[in-house]
Amino acid sequence: MALPPTFADIRIAHARIAPHVHRTPILTCSAIDTLVGGHLLFKCENFQRAGAFKARGAFNAVLGLPDDVAMRGVVTHSSGNHAAALALAAKSRGIAAHVVMPRTAPVPKKAAVAGYGGHIIECEPTLEAREAAAADLVARTGGTMVPPFDSSAVVAGQGTCAIELIEDAGVHLDAILCPVGGGGLLAGTAIATAAISPDTLVLAAEPLAADDAARGFRAGAMQPQVLPVATVADGLTTAMSDMTFGVMRALVWDVLTVSEEAIVEAMRLIWTRMKIIVEPSCVVPLAALLEGQWDARGKTVGIILTGGNVDLDRLPWMR
Amino acid sequence: MALPPTFADIRIAHARIAPHVHRTPILTCSAIDTLVGGHLLFKCENFQRAGAFKARGAFNAVLGLPDDVAMRGVVTHSSGNHAAALALAAKSRGIAAHVVMPRTAPVPKKAAVAGYGGHIIECEPTLEAREAAAADLVARTGGTMVPPFDSSAVVAGQGTCAIELIEDAGVHLDAILCPVGGGGLLAGTAIATAAISPDTLVLAAEPLAADDAARGFRAGAMQPQVLPVATVADGLTTAMSDMTFGVMRALVWDVLTVSEEAIVEAMRLIWTRMKIIVEPSCVVPLAALLEGQWDARGKTVGIILTGGNVDLDRLPWMR
Repeated sequence: MALPPTFADIRIAHARIAPHVHRTPILTCSAIDTLVGGHLLFKCENFQRAGAFKARGAFNAVLGLPDDVAMRGVVTHSSGNHAAALALAAKSRGIAAHVVMPRTAPVPKKAAVAGYGGHIIECEPTLEAREAAAADLVARTGGTMVPPFDSSAVVAGQGTCAIELIEDAGVHLDAILCPVGGGGLLAGTAIATAAISPDTLVLAAEPLAADDAARGFRAGAMQPQVLPVATVADGLTTAMSDMTFGVMRALVWDVLTVSEEAIVEAMRLIWTRMKIIVEPSCVVPLAALLEGQWDARGKTVGIILTGGNVDLDRLPWMR
Repeated sequence: MALPPTFADIRIAHARIAPHVHRTPILTCSAIDTLVGGHLLFKCENFQRAGAFKARGAFNAVLGLPDDVAMRGVVTHSSGNHAAALALAAKSRGIAAHVVMPRTAPVPKKAAVAGYGGHIIECEPTLEAREAAAADLVARTGGTMVPPFDSSAVVAGQGTCAIELIEDAGVHLDAILCPVGGGGLLAGTAIATAAISPDTLVLAAEPLAADDAARGFRAGAMQPQVLPVATVADGLTTAMSDMTFGVMRALVWDVLTVSEEAIVEAMRLIWTRMKIIVEPSCVVPLAALLEGQWDARGKTVGIILTGGNVDLDRLPWMR
């Protein structure tokens, strides 16, 4: 089982990746503040390289490899932002990235990976096929497997986002909210926040249609995702790992769940009022506040907007 | 005929409106730089209050009125961003804004004006009906007419954007590009740039389908718009005024024209790579560079992204 990173690991990751990733801005929106009744600071990882916070973990994992290991390349199986981020990080180091993707993956996702020079290996669209293809690649190339979240190095990289949010906020944060899928961002955020702003609550949010984290959090044991998962927040359908689940139990204040309607509404609200492109997965925390799942009135709240990679031809409100 | 503002007027406007408008950020995008071959600095007026640069001119016009005049309110006829901006500025000063809009104006446009407390007076969708209704309102209320661009105060306000772009760029700009519709932003930009960065070229861009400015620029005399105007850049269909046309002739280097396809392509490019929402009218300068209408290779170019008010249910690439 992967171990959680320490806060020292996150600090080291921050220094390591700083030349390669953006220190993304924090934006505010008075119209949304009025709706929520609190003051929200949005950490804009949609402006991050490759369009999502995933660049942080991917760069940390790739840059942390010894030269003789790195030269054999990296491997992952993912159909999402992690794959593109890993391809970008590998390209920056001049090494190969082998990405196993289901042959049914959307064309824009494949194009993103290929655009950063990643080698795509297609497989059948099952978890077993993906894992087998990835294991085969590792055996064949000697490359290092870089999973999307069940990795100390990846979680350490994702935790760097919270350091910047807390440092750049300029005010004390009563809470930080972030979405939870596999839990890599959540775990990194919780560890960093506990270390440098211990009286800031960390809350997770996920779609009600993929509420394994919330059920597990309350039950005190990991719960399976109920299949099939049908949510517009397609980045949050992953189940957590033992490691990320353990960090969540230890450090997270609560896990909020939101309806599909609230997700689409929150996405349109951010697009319309803030004029920025965010993907459905990353508006889930704001949706939770708009639905009153946690009372933000009078509070100062940091929200991590995790990514901005959307298919403009398939927006959730298009029929 | 309205007179152009002096640069001193623009400086005064800048100090006057500063507490009320955002000093919007400048964003860059290495992927777009690679496509164009130059370095582009995007001045993001899509993040401006009410979603467009129009807030600058509207606030300057409203705040510049003497108290006894202001108390009778302001009047305009517009179906676009100027109407919403004027309503916001009037609300800030606690005075009434009367906005004549064609009854056929899109619902989101009316909602924006009403959302800022503007009083909407509907009329038939002809220029004559709009002007008559506005003149009637002025006569009836004693309010001050604030036209969208043919006004020294409005042009002075729009010129403040270029001051910020030049001051915040941190590097010398070889050129500044902005779209031209009625010419208020173009005139203000040209006057400010001539004063504080005289060796920076100012270029205008407009849709080929609404190329009155380009034809007039070359002919040396104002040219009528060829009707009906069919362009996705619906903010740029207006004809110029004698004043804005005169400033353009005197100070602008060239007027570029672009195809409809290039406009939609440039809009998708900014949405996809920069993760910001911009409206079709404001991507016309980038479209011109992508079409090679002006060679930006090796140059540092400021581009004013004028606004971000789009109807998310009617995007140009939706069928």
